[in-house]
Amino acid sequence: MRPRSIAVIGASSTKNSIGRQILRNLILYEFQGKVFPVNLKADVIQSIKAYPSVLDIPDPVDLAIVVVPRQYVAKVATQCGKKGVKGMVVITAGFKEAGRTGVQMEKEILEITRKYKMRMIGPNCFGVVNTDPAVRMNATFGKTFPGRGKIAFVTQSGALGEAIMVKAEELGIGFSMVASVGNKADISGNDMLEYWSHDSDTDIILMYLENFGNPRKFIKIARELSRRKPIVVVKSGRTAQGARAASSHTGSLAGMDISAEALFVQSGVIRVDTVEALFDLTVALANQPIPKGRRVGIITNAGGPAILATDSLISQGLEAPPISEKTKKKLAEKLPPGLNISNPLDLIAGAGPKEFEAAMRIMSSAKEFDAIIPIFVPPITVDPKEVSRAMVRGLSKTKTTLACFMGVTTGSEGVSILRENSIPVYQFPEAIGKTLERLTNYREWLDRPTGQTPKFKVKKSIVSAIVKSYQDSDCAEIIGSDALTILEAYGIPTAGYLVADSAQEAISCAGQIGYPVVMKIDSPKILHKTEVGGVILDLRSAEEISAAFEKLQAKLVKNKIKGALSVSLQSMVKGGVETVMGMTYDPTFGPLIMFGLGGIYVEVMKDVSFRINPLTDMAAIDMIKSVKSYPLLKGFRGSKSVSFEALSGALLRLSQLVVDFPQFQEIDVNPFMSCPAGKRSRAVDARFILQKDAG
Amino acid sequence: MRPRSIAVIGASSTKNSIGRQILRNLILYEFQGKVFPVNLKADVIQSIKAYPSVLDIPDPVDLAIVVVPRQYVAKVATQCGKKGVKGMVVITAGFKEAGRTGVQMEKEILEITRKYKMRMIGPNCFGVVNTDPAVRMNATFGKTFPGRGKIAFVTQSGALGEAIMVKAEELGIGFSMVASVGNKADISGNDMLEYWSHDSDTDIILMYLENFGNPRKFIKIARELSRRKPIVVVKSGRTAQGARAASSHTGSLAGMDISAEALFVQSGVIRVDTVEALFDLTVALANQPIPKGRRVGIITNAGGPAILATDSLISQGLEAPPISEKTKKKLAEKLPPGLNISNPLDLIAGAGPKEFEAAMRIMSSAKEFDAIIPIFVPPITVDPKEVSRAMVRGLSKTKTTLACFMGVTTGSEGVSILRENSIPVYQFPEAIGKTLERLTNYREWLDRPTGQTPKFKVKKSIVSAIVKSYQDSDCAEIIGSDALTILEAYGIPTAGYLVADSAQEAISCAGQIGYPVVMKIDSPKILHKTEVGGVILDLRSAEEISAAFEKLQAKLVKNKIKGALSVSLQSMVKGGVETVMGMTYDPTFGPLIMFGLGGIYVEVMKDVSFRINPLTDMAAIDMIKSVKSYPLLKGFRGSKSVSFEALSGALLRLSQLVVDFPQFQEIDVNPFMSCPAGKRSRAVDARFILQKDAG
Repeated sequence: MRPRSIAVIGASSTKNSIGRQILRNLILYEFQGKVFPVNLKADVIQSIKAYPSVLDIPDPVDLAIVVVPRQYVAKVATQCGKKGVKGMVVITAGFKEAGRTGVQMEKEILEITRKYKMRMIGPNCFGVVNTDPAVRMNATFGKTFPGRGKIAFVTQSGALGEAIMVKAEELGIGFSMVASVGNKADISGNDMLEYWSHDSDTDIILMYLENFGNPRKFIKIARELSRRKPIVVVKSGRTAQGARAASSHTGSLAGMDISAEALFVQSGVIRVDTVEALFDLTVALANQPIPKGRRVGIITNAGGPAILATDSLISQGLEAPPISEKTKKKLAEKLPPGLNISNPLDLIAGAGPKEFEAAMRIMSSAKEFDAIIPIFVPPITVDPKEVSRAMVRGLSKTKTTLACFMGVTTGSEGVSILRENSIPVYQFPEAIGKTLERLTNYREWLDRPTGQTPKFKVKKSIVSAIVKSYQDSDCAEIIGSDALTILEAYGIPTAGYLVADSAQEAISCAGQIGYPVVMKIDSPKILHKTEVGGVILDLRSAEEISAAFEKLQAKLVKNKIKGALSVSLQSMVKGGVETVMGMTYDPTFGPLIMFGLGGIYVEVMKDVSFRINPLTDMAAIDMIKSVKSYPLLKGFRGSKSVSFEALSGALLRLSQLVVDFPQFQEIDVNPFMSCPAGKRSRAVDARFILQKDAG
Repeated sequence: MRPRSIAVIGASSTKNSIGRQILRNLILYEFQGKVFPVNLKADVIQSIKAYPSVLDIPDPVDLAIVVVPRQYVAKVATQCGKKGVKGMVVITAGFKEAGRTGVQMEKEILEITRKYKMRMIGPNCFGVVNTDPAVRMNATFGKTFPGRGKIAFVTQSGALGEAIMVKAEELGIGFSMVASVGNKADISGNDMLEYWSHDSDTDIILMYLENFGNPRKFIKIARELSRRKPIVVVKSGRTAQGARAASSHTGSLAGMDISAEALFVQSGVIRVDTVEALFDLTVALANQPIPKGRRVGIITNAGGPAILATDSLISQGLEAPPISEKTKKKLAEKLPPGLNISNPLDLIAGAGPKEFEAAMRIMSSAKEFDAIIPIFVPPITVDPKEVSRAMVRGLSKTKTTLACFMGVTTGSEGVSILRENSIPVYQFPEAIGKTLERLTNYREWLDRPTGQTPKFKVKKSIVSAIVKSYQDSDCAEIIGSDALTILEAYGIPTAGYLVADSAQEAISCAGQIGYPVVMKIDSPKILHKTEVGGVILDLRSAEEISAAFEKLQAKLVKNKIKGALSVSLQSMVKGGVETVMGMTYDPTFGPLIMFGLGGIYVEVMKDVSFRINPLTDMAAIDMIKSVKSYPLLKGFRGSKSVSFEALSGALLRLSQLVVDFPQFQEIDVNPFMSCPAGKRSRAVDARFILQKDAG
């Protein structure tokens, strides 16, 4: 990917035209090769000989930057193909994002690209940058000339690309490459990831995404790559409405955010919500080691900022542990007497270079801290530059250090000294907490074993038979005993289940099962049974059973449901926690496994976790632990902890079921009673929906 | 508060000394009066005649800035008193924040201040600023000379004061006054609020707080003032550990955050978590009207940023409604054909001044929007300055407008043009969502009726008697029937309650109450009954009762609890939602009323709301609505909504009980079964703890 000659097709000398700006950027950024303007009319542009078409260029051409109006792009692409151009960057907009005609045109140029074995970036993009001294290619129409660095950046929005490059310049962040991929007709974010995974000039990868073309491929690449090179993503379309805005703009529907969230969690990608956070994190990743843990030591010369820092650390789930006796002794030797030595370590306003250097050195070497936050508010009595130099002297290369310099304008010399010595500087302490939280989560991902997807021995044929019978009878929904049989076939235990059509029958069933029992309406017509009160719990005698049967009969009438009543009877499961597991199908991401606590936790609190199928054993445990109501499973107020083995086991078996039967559109195991080890956890009810097109 | 002459006691000519800096600041900022340096030795400082003591100054002195070492402050204060100085600003540190001696010294200088009827700011502070052209007093040792504006700012941390003034200068925010109140020995934040409430030069009040001296007074002042002038607070010590850090630094324990949070909610104070958010909000308040609602229209020339903006709006609970047909028509007339007219309104990259002006004018006048967010990412083809001017022309003074200018360094002319025309500019769109959320919450506070605290007819004497009897018998805990009697006396309905000492008795009680019943161990020794399984629900027959009685007897033995078993019997309340209400006592804030949903919601999810007592009717409703599990009360899955009248009624009666009986340290009404209107909501169990010192 080191072009030696570039044709700018649509180059022009019209002031403020994109074609001119790209040409100028290539030249002024000193591209290490030849640049050929292509323009139908002009024979010279920017004092460079221009050609009417790429075919007229005497030399070979590696790369073409295409800026011509959309109706000419296809023609130009064909010429490029004939010329033997290897790659095209199509800046021109008005394709997939601009309605039906555009979609058609985009298909056309993609076919041409494929036909001539070219690769294409765009259309509808901002261009590409390669800062490699041997290349020095700025093929964008932006106003910034990015500095050299180890960060690669791919963006789906040209505007954000430019905005981020400008901000990066302000902060002195350098790039290895920048690619605005626009509509991603050919080259996608995944392609860039694959390239950078082998690019020795790239250590960190930044992405701005609005949607995923091939999320499953993204997981495959990112899961491995993120263990070697941090991948930081701003994914917009977090909210349903944001997603709609995204789709109307990029011409492809933005994936639901739960799917995206699951994808990032499962592939170790670091997600940030805002562009600010992207920078806060990037300067840290680019300059500092990733902390080994969550324990942070704070050094300050002012109380207020230290309190704000502590607040933000704690609220982000980090820790500010006390200073060990050993460290206290060391500090006491070096610091003025009478100073209150605790964490945050407040050196008070008088503190100068001497105190800061000592504090930095000792705190950085202390075993009780994984990261250090030096905070400095320049009092007039102290020279900030001196303090900065002292901090640098006291710095430990092995311990994450993020500094806060307050009350000085960002440009100040003190700040520059720290930055030049790769100590990231934040203007206010709160951003540091958020940044460290992301870093430590990433650390935990790095330390976590990859985990694997177990293969269980199951009775697949039983499920196939049931599914087939429903497909044949054109019934899309499997509930009741059939549903539970499917789960049993995959080794997911279920509660005993008998069906009765009369009070008498019900009583004898109850006899077999043993009191107390639960009675439910067993009718596909009624889904959310509880809504019509179709479930009666804890029946303890024949009398209660017949009473219940009559009650349900009345319900049917009341709800105008035809046909004779049949009820199901199950033994009443007590002393377990009601959980829910299931599968929901995302058009882009495929099946997602869902887990949560039963009833209102799912419906009201929306306290559920999703993972993209298939699950690894690690993922199964992880998704159980990540629901807020997790403490309930661990046991609360005397109640025993549920068996996590049984729970994760059931999830993994469900995951295998979903792999084996793509016919399922939706699965709902609700409730799955999770019981303590020894007692049998089991599914009480389940519901399967078959794909419309299935069979 | 217009000093005509100031003495700087401890003024000096030593370079970088605080005494010198303050003197210089006063002079260079051109204080509109006389400045007298006071220094024991020097007879001239900064070319100004100096005096050995304030008493030697020939002219009268209004204000003294004190910078002498702490051991001389008392002496100096006495001299000031004798001289007839009206106010002192004590910069000197080393008092309450620095251990026992300091506390003593602070007490001493406070007494002197009182004795001579002076007022004092500090000690341990950064100084004060008054930008009034008739005063022009910069009595700080900072490096900034704040510009004139309508914002008053009081800070408990000098360091943050300086930091915030520097940042404000960057953003062109001006102040009316700045006061660093340090240890607040005499003049507190409350005093400043009272002053500014009548100060016509102050429209907005900013506070940095670490703790409250007199929170009840704060509520009284702020509740009224915040309806006329927005009060924006950064309160640090949000986390327990942050609070500890705060206490170790300011020498007074930082109030628990739940109390602070309740206080802000109840007094209409706008709380922000970070200093960045403080500025984001302040520039909006200072330049724009407060939006009338949550409906936001977005105008952009780039898709990506608009999606980020939409995300942040929606996730902050704001709305981005569709554009009305009427508005669409107007836009279609003015905008290029083929443009997709929806919200966000993407004018696409080509858009220039003409498009932006039209879009701004039409969207701003559209009834369907309460606020407008113009987003601009300068493409090389358009001049940002022109677009800025166009935005200004299209601006409606009556509709909140917050702009996002991306990819241009903050200083750029385009941005300046907007700022000069009081359109706040944000570098990235995410901050705008957070800002609008705060603004709309504030609007809702402004629109909400104040509400009042009803006075119920109650049987106070009954409660007095019970309380007395427990105090006499030195028993700090009231549970069981006595507890429920107290509630009844205040008109809070309770579940029928009978006590029995034998299975036989229990059976006859159940007979009186009517099956099904609940049986509980009625023994003070066992608090969390459910933990030892001391509660048996839903007993339906004599057999089940005697079985239950034996079971509980066994429990007692198992838990080695001496004495004969006595049990309470209550009718089983069905079809209600288990809620909890109570009171907890905060040493600084006094009694807080608590509300939440029963069991795990309180214990695990910590889903509870607090309000400072006494409650208004508005506050009672508000605290019910503010728990996350609120949907459960409104009725979920067929279940009816509970009676909010009964619920808020109970809370208000509890509030009155707490006012009438300061002897209570803690109250726990758990559960209070909230039932639908018609069915009787009632307390099932309650527990009162008496103050140690009470009686």
